[in-house]
Amino acid sequence: MGKLQSFGIIGGDKRQLYCGRSMEEDGYRVLYHGFHVSGEGVGVQNSDIETIVRECDALLLPLPCSRDGITVNAPFSERTVLLQELQSAFETKPIFCGMKSKLPCKYKQVYDYAAREEFAVENAVSTGEGAIGLAIAHYEGTIHGARCLVTGYGRIGKVLSRMLQGLGADVTVSARSLKDMAMIRAFGMKAMDSGSLSGQYDLIFNTVPCLLFDAQTLAKTAANALIIDLASLPGGIDDKSAERLSIPIIHALSLPGKTAPKASGIIIKNAVYHIIREEEL
Amino acid sequence: MGKLQSFGIIGGDKRQLYCGRSMEEDGYRVLYHGFHVSGEGVGVQNSDIETIVRECDALLLPLPCSRDGITVNAPFSERTVLLQELQSAFETKPIFCGMKSKLPCKYKQVYDYAAREEFAVENAVSTGEGAIGLAIAHYEGTIHGARCLVTGYGRIGKVLSRMLQGLGADVTVSARSLKDMAMIRAFGMKAMDSGSLSGQYDLIFNTVPCLLFDAQTLAKTAANALIIDLASLPGGIDDKSAERLSIPIIHALSLPGKTAPKASGIIIKNAVYHIIREEEL
Amino acid sequence: MGKLQSFGIIGGDKRQLYCGRSMEEDGYRVLYHGFHVSGEGVGVQNSDIETIVRECDALLLPLPCSRDGITVNAPFSERTVLLQELQSAFETKPIFCGMKSKLPCKYKQVYDYAAREEFAVENAVSTGEGAIGLAIAHYEGTIHGARCLVTGYGRIGKVLSRMLQGLGADVTVSARSLKDMAMIRAFGMKAMDSGSLSGQYDLIFNTVPCLLFDAQTLAKTAANALIIDLASLPGGIDDKSAERLSIPIIHALSLPGKTAPKASGIIIKNAVYHIIREEEL
Amino acid sequence: MGKLQSFGIIGGDKRQLYCGRSMEEDGYRVLYHGFHVSGEGVGVQNSDIETIVRECDALLLPLPCSRDGITVNAPFSERTVLLQELQSAFETKPIFCGMKSKLPCKYKQVYDYAAREEFAVENAVSTGEGAIGLAIAHYEGTIHGARCLVTGYGRIGKVLSRMLQGLGADVTVSARSLKDMAMIRAFGMKAMDSGSLSGQYDLIFNTVPCLLFDAQTLAKTAANALIIDLASLPGGIDDKSAERLSIPIIHALSLPGKTAPKASGIIIKNAVYHIIREEEL
Repeated sequence: MGKLQSFGIIGGDKRQLYCGRSMEEDGYRVLYHGFHVSGEGVGVQNSDIETIVRECDALLLPLPCSRDGITVNAPFSERTVLLQELQSAFETKPIFCGMKSKLPCKYKQVYDYAAREEFAVENAVSTGEGAIGLAIAHYEGTIHGARCLVTGYGRIGKVLSRMLQGLGADVTVSARSLKDMAMIRAFGMKAMDSGSLSGQYDLIFNTVPCLLFDAQTLAKTAANALIIDLASLPGGIDDKSAERLSIPIIHALSLPGKTAPKASGIIIKNAVYHIIREEEL
Repeated sequence: MGKLQSFGIIGGDKRQLYCGRSMEEDGYRVLYHGFHVSGEGVGVQNSDIETIVRECDALLLPLPCSRDGITVNAPFSERTVLLQELQSAFETKPIFCGMKSKLPCKYKQVYDYAAREEFAVENAVSTGEGAIGLAIAHYEGTIHGARCLVTGYGRIGKVLSRMLQGLGADVTVSARSLKDMAMIRAFGMKAMDSGSLSGQYDLIFNTVPCLLFDAQTLAKTAANALIIDLASLPGGIDDKSAERLSIPIIHALSLPGKTAPKASGIIIKNAVYHIIREEEL
Repeated sequence: MGKLQSFGIIGGDKRQLYCGRSMEEDGYRVLYHGFHVSGEGVGVQNSDIETIVRECDALLLPLPCSRDGITVNAPFSERTVLLQELQSAFETKPIFCGMKSKLPCKYKQVYDYAAREEFAVENAVSTGEGAIGLAIAHYEGTIHGARCLVTGYGRIGKVLSRMLQGLGADVTVSARSLKDMAMIRAFGMKAMDSGSLSGQYDLIFNTVPCLLFDAQTLAKTAANALIIDLASLPGGIDDKSAERLSIPIIHALSLPGKTAPKASGIIIKNAVYHIIREEEL
Repeated sequence: MGKLQSFGIIGGDKRQLYCGRSMEEDGYRVLYHGFHVSGEGVGVQNSDIETIVRECDALLLPLPCSRDGITVNAPFSERTVLLQELQSAFETKPIFCGMKSKLPCKYKQVYDYAAREEFAVENAVSTGEGAIGLAIAHYEGTIHGARCLVTGYGRIGKVLSRMLQGLGADVTVSARSLKDMAMIRAFGMKAMDSGSLSGQYDLIFNTVPCLLFDAQTLAKTAANALIIDLASLPGGIDDKSAERLSIPIIHALSLPGKTAPKASGIIIKNAVYHIIREEEL
């Protein structure tokens, strides 16, 4: 444990609660604000902002820390929490938050845990499981034996394709480079160029935020498929063509917070600890 | 293709529809009765019973074929279908059904596809995926990295434990014999005697229809766990003790038909084909 | 630890040495006889038979304990050790040995560790790895991507097929029953009836001690294959036809002791401990 | 097939032979020179250099194409083949070779297949299997259950760690970045910082060509280990300290050509085809 001994968690959802609880288990003192509506038995005692700012060595804001640049993103709070209420803390204490670009100004000691690469990789696991949960819930066959296409071999593509393989699917992954395609094959899956998708699939998981699936590609590969689009909006599918072809699409965003808030909370905690170590806070 | 060229499918749910459709794709003629309420765009044309009995070489009844010994199990039908309506077919044609013990009398040519071992193994895949879908939906962490206990190393235990392993869980499987325990370890998992369960788990999947989890075992292994009970009723858990200990239990029965009706339909078809081949029908 | 506190290890090869060493690490006193030629720096002090019989609570003989019914199987010994020298021990102490049918008479307290099922399963892991080592050494392609056929879905078939799958091979397993074939498919491999082998393979691993590969089957499936025959003699291949067809065969017997003497020694130890617990020795 | 219809393969070992044979199977005309001593029944007819240069559309040289900058690397040849003999071809035809930096001058149409990334990835599979073959041959336990450390998460580290996992080892992989360490964990293995190795291992596979294992690290992690060093010379281990500590090291270089010449030949062919497509030859 470094110099920081206490944390004030302000705003956020279950993820922040699980993060805080896990920090308490590690021996830290944690105060909370903005969790009046916690639901599902997750009791938590709220402190007032002044106490938190006065007594805590550092603050922890959610992901995203704010949606409007004015208020803290605090969906479980009974009151609106203004960023301005934290002004003195912003100037004097380390603040850990997600997506710091949402803040109205730059501060010297604001650290963005969501910008870290290992944070993104760890969340890919939750995203992958969430996608598999959707496939199990909505596809009427089994993933085992299903012809699955995963487009893109970034973090989510890597983790998700492996999970599908672990469930016994017939997995094809598309990528842009011959090198990635060779690695996909080395890992026992079929590889395909993202630029020329072909084949017939039962399940398609898109992770690429470009229009890979135009009308023609949809007709060729997805006629009998369920598509789960994991790419950030507008996603990678020509939705109108899909509708015309009666191809069902599930747009699945922010899966980690939804399907695995506990895992997400611990991932936030880990990233914060990494920052503390690297910055010697 | 043998001597049987046409099948009459009477009663059942989506599974029978998928079974029939797949038989049609294999080149068989298939007539249906009892699918007036099919929902979700699964259009099907109903023939009347007399036509089916007259024109089809064999009949296919659902699983279970009847719940009361009087009517066909036909949840999608607008009318009650009596077993008696099929009397002449029972006496003259091969009938394929699930759980033939539900029929009021014995007939010479009634074959029970659900009694076949390969049918049970194939359904274990659907059950396993259904259980994983429930875990993803209800557990707030990720299966990846979770401490999972699977009790029992029968069909479902074998298939489910492998899937959990494929998703990156920390898997322990319990069994009764040293031989099974050795095989569990040979497959890279931890093994434990079903008679003396220990350890702390995040997720417990019970496949054994005996009371493995009494109050004491629950307190010892499941204090922070979600239990998914896959064993037929009354299951393997002392529900009252679990409630007192605030341990959540999901009783999950008949998962194949619910989570993977298409896969289930094809499994029925495969079992029917195996019978046809073995009996030289 | 039970009542037995000291063991005398008489005869055997590296396996017995590793077994003894591991018992010493568990806190037992272990005396040795018959390890004058131990090689490779595995120093061991030999006690004379009388001392061992007098001081040890139990004896441990190798696998097989004897080849001729007269002498102990002691390949590392500078002298011949007669079973008769152990006569008084046979009558008064627990003796753990492999293949007790090789002994000239029956004794009340002779226990055969090699007859135990978990012993056989654990050895299947060593056999599987040994077979893979042979394939890597002799096949000029990679196992990854190779079309592999494993005949038989017993202990070795189960473990070996999984290992091949773990290395990225394209694995087909043959079995006799539809149930086993369904389980093979549930585990993500291709299944085939052992009675009608077909397909072209790069590597064939036979585990079935019956003539599966006659001239016709060899010509059909193995024209360009390397065959590794793991079945006990005479094995499962028509050697003469294979020679005529220029199909290379490696007869691989007793792999565990050869490729993994350390693992084998610990497997012997585990089996002995199981017997002690079950028999309350 | 493009404009190139015939290839002249000059020099090299079994890899080039397998490459040529596979090209012939694809419909190309292939002439050979330098394979007088082919051994093991790999018959091949040699053409003279003039014929090859005159009749072939392109030449294929081995990896490395030359060791001295003067002669072609032709270990199976009964005569020395000078690079100069190919002078006119170098000036007029596409030449595919491995390590073109070994040639004395630069030519416009010389393409280096060994410099391609997908070539390196595909060879990592052969290297990984070769390393596993060495471990099976030299380690007296089984890889299954062994504590394995793989240092470095580049191509070989990625592929090898996965194979070890597939065989049931307890795998730890070391890397430099938190991102790679997160990916290693996402793939179900343990991760460690390459800069501070710790733990006790049975098998250590080094893929990093820097001195990771000094005397202190060796004593801490490798006291009872077998080390397989896959890094190019001088490797990553302080050999003298290892010798003093009696830690066995196997320096394993150029595994693909040794353990899987057939696979290597096909990898060369694939890389050549990729060049032809990209360069529109």
